[in-house]
Amino acid sequence: MTTRTTFLGLGAMGSELAAAALDAGRPSVVWNRTPDRAAALGERGAIVARTVDRAITGDGPIILCLLDHQSVHAVIDPVATSLAGRIMINLTTTTPGQARELAAWATEHGVTYLNGAIMAVPEMIGRPGAVIFYSGAESAFEENRKLLDLWGQSDYFGTDPGMASLRDMAMLVGMYTMFAGFLHGAAMVGVEGVSATEFARRQTPFLAAMTGQLAGLAAAVDAEDYAGAGQQSLEFTEAALASLVTASLEAGVQVDVLRPVHDIVRRQIAAGHGRQGTARIFEELRNAR
Amino acid sequence: MTTRTTFLGLGAMGSELAAAALDAGRPSVVWNRTPDRAAALGERGAIVARTVDRAITGDGPIILCLLDHQSVHAVIDPVATSLAGRIMINLTTTTPGQARELAAWATEHGVTYLNGAIMAVPEMIGRPGAVIFYSGAESAFEENRKLLDLWGQSDYFGTDPGMASLRDMAMLVGMYTMFAGFLHGAAMVGVEGVSATEFARRQTPFLAAMTGQLAGLAAAVDAEDYAGAGQQSLEFTEAALASLVTASLEAGVQVDVLRPVHDIVRRQIAAGHGRQGTARIFEELRNAR
Repeated sequence: MTTRTTFLGLGAMGSELAAAALDAGRPSVVWNRTPDRAAALGERGAIVARTVDRAITGDGPIILCLLDHQSVHAVIDPVATSLAGRIMINLTTTTPGQARELAAWATEHGVTYLNGAIMAVPEMIGRPGAVIFYSGAESAFEENRKLLDLWGQSDYFGTDPGMASLRDMAMLVGMYTMFAGFLHGAAMVGVEGVSATEFARRQTPFLAAMTGQLAGLAAAVDAEDYAGAGQQSLEFTEAALASLVTASLEAGVQVDVLRPVHDIVRRQIAAGHGRQGTARIFEELRNAR
Repeated sequence: MTTRTTFLGLGAMGSELAAAALDAGRPSVVWNRTPDRAAALGERGAIVARTVDRAITGDGPIILCLLDHQSVHAVIDPVATSLAGRIMINLTTTTPGQARELAAWATEHGVTYLNGAIMAVPEMIGRPGAVIFYSGAESAFEENRKLLDLWGQSDYFGTDPGMASLRDMAMLVGMYTMFAGFLHGAAMVGVEGVSATEFARRQTPFLAAMTGQLAGLAAAVDAEDYAGAGQQSLEFTEAALASLVTASLEAGVQVDVLRPVHDIVRRQIAAGHGRQGTARIFEELRNAR
């Protein structure tokens, strides 16, 4: 018998995962809540299952890539008894707490659980730069390395099922805030007739270069030394951010994303740290109020 | 007579600008509000002036790099009559409106005004990757190209003195939101004992890779088409951001910077755009409420 890989969930990401497996000649069975998404993969050689029950026959790994944690339970709870003895690799975006909850559920139902967190957008799957973090059952990680490596670089972060998710989410915050900041900037120059595409041509290499500053911010954080040489002071940053807020409002651009960054810097200055480095923003963020 | 370049303001950035000129063998006179910053440049061959009046003798270009717009006026207003006929290149961070105001002041006082906006941190000055935007008097730009090119790539954006600043500020929004997002992520993994430095080692190449997504976001914005293939839907992004907020709060990390991004996405979904692409965040930002 050929071992089939099961794919549950065929959104943009789930479809790419299944497509990569099919392209590598891997027998696969696919299922999606709405069947239209499955048709394209059927044409590429996948067996299209009409129900979750049929999709999970066999003994191959079961890959989940659904909308959220709730969707995972909606899919697996009804077939729980059929999952005993199987390997479940969950690539749905889940919080660390949710990943740990699913791991406990899996243990209870005799399922071997590996949690994965994808550090890529769908079109990057199987291409250089795609990285997927895993944590949970090490056996599931080792036994399925060939499959996992089809999608990107596979990094294992230990048996705590929440760790991959925590590391993933920590990285995504920077991505989403960067995207929002880029779109904010595009709105500013858009007022003067500059296209977002022209803006992106300059913003892309600039932000890529600026990622080179993160190591310096990190060093200040780790040393808890915000007074070292070469650090941009909070006072300087405050003046810059105040200008950005003013310029945005002059251009009619909303400052919902920018103003909180300015406010954090202002609070740190009010607390007497104006001469210290901008990495002190960390001190404000790590203490939820 | 040797033409001297005058540097007014010797903060971290101003000092780098003057140092680059000195290293290139350019006779320079420097002044700072607090004289201690000037001493190091004096040792590198600069003439240290005790007053602004003395610093601006001669006929070379006058480079300003001060804290903010107010500081510029505090420095130039008292010596206004001595500035007639001179070239003033202002690299202080100013809003487009402030740059236009200074250009008007300059015209009134017979000064040729070029506004510059530095797309780099101090340590990048004179190294690959540093870019400076200029707008305003084209003659001042052309006549001083050798000096300007010592600091980085010099880009001229036309005679509107506010344009360099607008383009600069639009680019800096993405940088500061990215920095804040990075420090937020560092706080999340810090809870589990991961150092900010280890986090930066992964975050840096990841964010650099993610800048490759900006062109796609820009294309959707320019086409005003958020329904095209390959776009990550607002619904997907909302689910991801909801998870990031939950995971942050679970880790005791403040969500002041992250929550507004989530809120924007939620408002766009509430307006009926959930199936459309995430670049629609632009539509929310460009309309200040």
